[in-house]
Amino acid sequence: MELGIIGLGKMGANMAERLRLAGHKVVGFDFNKEAVDKLTAAGSVGVSSLEDLVKNLSAPRAVWIMVPAGQPVDDTIAKLEQYMEKGDTFIDGGNTNYKDTQRRHAEAAAKGFEYIDCGTSGGIWGLKEGYSLMIGGDKAPVERLNPIFEALAPSPTEGWGHVGPSGAGHFTKMVHNGIEYGLMQAYAEGFSILKAKDTLGLDLEQISTIWQKGSVVRSWLLDLTADALKKNPTLDGMEAYVPDSGEGRWTVFEAIDLNISAPVITESLIRRLRSRENNNFTDRMISIMRNEFGGHAIKKS
Amino acid sequence: MELGIIGLGKMGANMAERLRLAGHKVVGFDFNKEAVDKLTAAGSVGVSSLEDLVKNLSAPRAVWIMVPAGQPVDDTIAKLEQYMEKGDTFIDGGNTNYKDTQRRHAEAAAKGFEYIDCGTSGGIWGLKEGYSLMIGGDKAPVERLNPIFEALAPSPTEGWGHVGPSGAGHFTKMVHNGIEYGLMQAYAEGFSILKAKDTLGLDLEQISTIWQKGSVVRSWLLDLTADALKKNPTLDGMEAYVPDSGEGRWTVFEAIDLNISAPVITESLIRRLRSRENNNFTDRMISIMRNEFGGHAIKKS
Amino acid sequence: MELGIIGLGKMGANMAERLRLAGHKVVGFDFNKEAVDKLTAAGSVGVSSLEDLVKNLSAPRAVWIMVPAGQPVDDTIAKLEQYMEKGDTFIDGGNTNYKDTQRRHAEAAAKGFEYIDCGTSGGIWGLKEGYSLMIGGDKAPVERLNPIFEALAPSPTEGWGHVGPSGAGHFTKMVHNGIEYGLMQAYAEGFSILKAKDTLGLDLEQISTIWQKGSVVRSWLLDLTADALKKNPTLDGMEAYVPDSGEGRWTVFEAIDLNISAPVITESLIRRLRSRENNNFTDRMISIMRNEFGGHAIKKS
Amino acid sequence: MELGIIGLGKMGANMAERLRLAGHKVVGFDFNKEAVDKLTAAGSVGVSSLEDLVKNLSAPRAVWIMVPAGQPVDDTIAKLEQYMEKGDTFIDGGNTNYKDTQRRHAEAAAKGFEYIDCGTSGGIWGLKEGYSLMIGGDKAPVERLNPIFEALAPSPTEGWGHVGPSGAGHFTKMVHNGIEYGLMQAYAEGFSILKAKDTLGLDLEQISTIWQKGSVVRSWLLDLTADALKKNPTLDGMEAYVPDSGEGRWTVFEAIDLNISAPVITESLIRRLRSRENNNFTDRMISIMRNEFGGHAIKKS
Repeated sequence: MELGIIGLGKMGANMAERLRLAGHKVVGFDFNKEAVDKLTAAGSVGVSSLEDLVKNLSAPRAVWIMVPAGQPVDDTIAKLEQYMEKGDTFIDGGNTNYKDTQRRHAEAAAKGFEYIDCGTSGGIWGLKEGYSLMIGGDKAPVERLNPIFEALAPSPTEGWGHVGPSGAGHFTKMVHNGIEYGLMQAYAEGFSILKAKDTLGLDLEQISTIWQKGSVVRSWLLDLTADALKKNPTLDGMEAYVPDSGEGRWTVFEAIDLNISAPVITESLIRRLRSRENNNFTDRMISIMRNEFGGHAIKKS
Repeated sequence: MELGIIGLGKMGANMAERLRLAGHKVVGFDFNKEAVDKLTAAGSVGVSSLEDLVKNLSAPRAVWIMVPAGQPVDDTIAKLEQYMEKGDTFIDGGNTNYKDTQRRHAEAAAKGFEYIDCGTSGGIWGLKEGYSLMIGGDKAPVERLNPIFEALAPSPTEGWGHVGPSGAGHFTKMVHNGIEYGLMQAYAEGFSILKAKDTLGLDLEQISTIWQKGSVVRSWLLDLTADALKKNPTLDGMEAYVPDSGEGRWTVFEAIDLNISAPVITESLIRRLRSRENNNFTDRMISIMRNEFGGHAIKKS
Repeated sequence: MELGIIGLGKMGANMAERLRLAGHKVVGFDFNKEAVDKLTAAGSVGVSSLEDLVKNLSAPRAVWIMVPAGQPVDDTIAKLEQYMEKGDTFIDGGNTNYKDTQRRHAEAAAKGFEYIDCGTSGGIWGLKEGYSLMIGGDKAPVERLNPIFEALAPSPTEGWGHVGPSGAGHFTKMVHNGIEYGLMQAYAEGFSILKAKDTLGLDLEQISTIWQKGSVVRSWLLDLTADALKKNPTLDGMEAYVPDSGEGRWTVFEAIDLNISAPVITESLIRRLRSRENNNFTDRMISIMRNEFGGHAIKKS
Repeated sequence: MELGIIGLGKMGANMAERLRLAGHKVVGFDFNKEAVDKLTAAGSVGVSSLEDLVKNLSAPRAVWIMVPAGQPVDDTIAKLEQYMEKGDTFIDGGNTNYKDTQRRHAEAAAKGFEYIDCGTSGGIWGLKEGYSLMIGGDKAPVERLNPIFEALAPSPTEGWGHVGPSGAGHFTKMVHNGIEYGLMQAYAEGFSILKAKDTLGLDLEQISTIWQKGSVVRSWLLDLTADALKKNPTLDGMEAYVPDSGEGRWTVFEAIDLNISAPVITESLIRRLRSRENNNFTDRMISIMRNEFGGHAIKKS
């Protein structure tokens, strides 16, 4: 079937290609002309405006929005609406906060549009291995787009599903990413302990490879970790600096709003914050207290 | 080749069978006569005493000890030593603290015995899928026993390795289990958040299945979780009570001794402790403070 | 000077009395007629409507709002505005989110009213010991009301201050309460460890009393704890159940929004959430995973 | 009465002086000759050997050991034993692990000596304000030394007590310090959040002063914090580096051994470990995982 895709970055371009390979017609737009040319060269239809994108699709249209969460999504919808018709469908495949999704779904419905949220996991490996898709929204448009989901997923019957009403897809993906934070922190702590035990001379790359087969901790993240350790076993030349996109903090906010105690996901986020605090003020406060009550020396900078 | 196995519980019996299927001769002992009979019935050699076990093996012997960590290991070694000869090898495949292993290795070496530690992961699935083996000890005995490790591992070249000197195997397994605590807590928190969002009516079983394919959080633990949710989607009839064996707490102790901050593994342990604190005293202390300063009501029991 | 007070609960009634004792004229209203009568009996002016309250004050009026945070504050302001005049001042002395305060300040300013936020600490002890006041808002109305603040504070020159523009008072009080969560949790954990060490037979009441004088951990919260332990040394008859008002979670949200890692305040909140999770789902999830991979028994409920 | 003091550092010298001012005869030794001369100049008896120290005391003697925990305590006892007589008493006033204390108590008892453990809090302020003393050991020697404890404490009837058998004093002091870690971290986090909210322009020094009077978070640690902020409001020229002496980690180990969940004390320790991890390996591990699955950029060092 036909699908418009807006946003041809790392994720969008790969998804377009996976759909094309599955026999679907993809019409793609990006502000980056190079990305559009690349799409065209690959055999899909690259266009130079949102108007053209809509024109190249037959009704009922479906347009997959793969742009950064927040204002860019609202901007894209506002422009698309000028050209789209009642019964057309928006799909937000990005890491959007589910509350924004629910608002946009209501706004779209009021204008006669369908609105689907699709939490999309798989990263840069999705082209080859397929994407895990967590879909929220109304039944009819989701069912109409099943062929698209079947093509993007690892297999037509695996790795994707319609999980609930509007917002359910993005909520599920948000929690997915919260879990991901926890998993990463757990592995990273373990490898740090192994590395610190220098009297045993452990080889992190070897151990990561051993654990890939048969162990209780085997996982795709461990596979990636083993690959990374092969390339740079000592992690030289890197800063201890970890960004966070919104989904980890949203998960923490949601957990608290729902009165669910989630210490590990929360602590994983907190540690990312900590990685970016230069000359941590909290630690300095503790140093002055120790100095005040016990005369303990303060380390000068 | 030949291997004695002491301890034919869930783990030991399956390991014996996997070795037998690979063509090795297994001589097994357990205080539980039924377990010995089962071994014999399966085609291995069940014996009724440690003396018989040693007699049924040709020198240089190798005896795999698969009994609960701690005193039982010391007791087993003390008895075996009466019958074994210089050059024979002990393998401790259990969840032993690596410090005990290093002590026993030194004691064994002083008497002319070889001593290998083998951290063994895989649980009840090892018979079918193979075990992940993290091996510590001296080079010669480990190399001599390579055929055993190749047979127990998922494949002769995968999932096992000689990771370092005595204690290195158990240390690595200890950290493996510490990571495992963190992974489990991360998943469990995520599913709790999904469950609590009742306005979206999410289906935990469906979501766990979706995530198994293509998602960043796919893992063997997630596969097991999906299986468990299929059987009991609401986890009814269970208490919120989580035991911990020693390895999680040892990991926390080691991290602190090594001055490595490991908040997620630590918090995962703390939450298990919390699950077993009835009528938590800490919470009650906080309630009385709130009552004292703010007149806030105390919930009576 | 004159002050209207709306809300004569635990806090409001005591504040009215402290002001009266200092020679100020207090006009008080509460939906609870008994509370109003009590105020009148104590020698202040109890009134039966907001209109009467305003009428009993001379311009420029100042009305202290001491009602539950949220909608009740908006409702109270909406009603008062009908009777008050330009130049009159609202003071919100409750535990309001500073963002609401900033919104209300802007709304009040647009109508010609002054709007002050006053974070108020001291609990039920404030009548006797004075209140710690953290004041936000514009300079002129704060200065005009200095006599009120001086009377409410522990002393005219201590325990209160104008800390910044609108919202600064409530923000500071919010963080104050976040710290309070952390302090309480730290003490409570310590006493739990003392109690658990039953081989030493420690007496919590005795220890709390010792620590009150000369120790590094002496504090007002410790004084209250010692008092409470005198009354109920074993904390019998209480549930391990800790409510949280909004300020702890707001502190956590703010910390994350500001990219500040605050693990102890956060964990203190999380533990309160945990205290209210019956048959914790997270723990049950971990139990089923342990059962799946290791065959570990599940504790039935 | 008479007391020998070994170790005339910050704590020991002040304790000697406080006892002298109360009319007790203090005989003091330190390897640092200057410290001994200072003691003599102040009016106590400085001696140049342990033998002289013992000779200058009348039986039954009491010797207060105020040296670094660990081997120095054992060494001091071993030397003193050569000169002391049955019925003499050792008092360990340092931050010793209570398990070492219990061992030493048993060893001393076997030789006919008394052995008291005295957890001592108060830091460099003790000379002026008195020390909080948590005393463990047998009844008779503790009672005999009451005049010493009464003089060291803030008042004869306050701030000290015999809390239990041998080890109870050091155990209680250990937990005291664990609580201290949590309190310090809670305050420090709060001030960090206040500081980060730069749109409100909050003045940390002012706020710390306000909170000292009437607030729920008032404490001695807050008083010290306010003093420190007066001297250096921005904490310039300091490194974010926090040492930890043993008592925090022992508290964490004990909590786990006792199956008590103590997340805040534990996290406070973990944050101190974190403050000393240069180019944190855990963070770098997470960065490579993010790069592997999502192509996220790694920050180069």
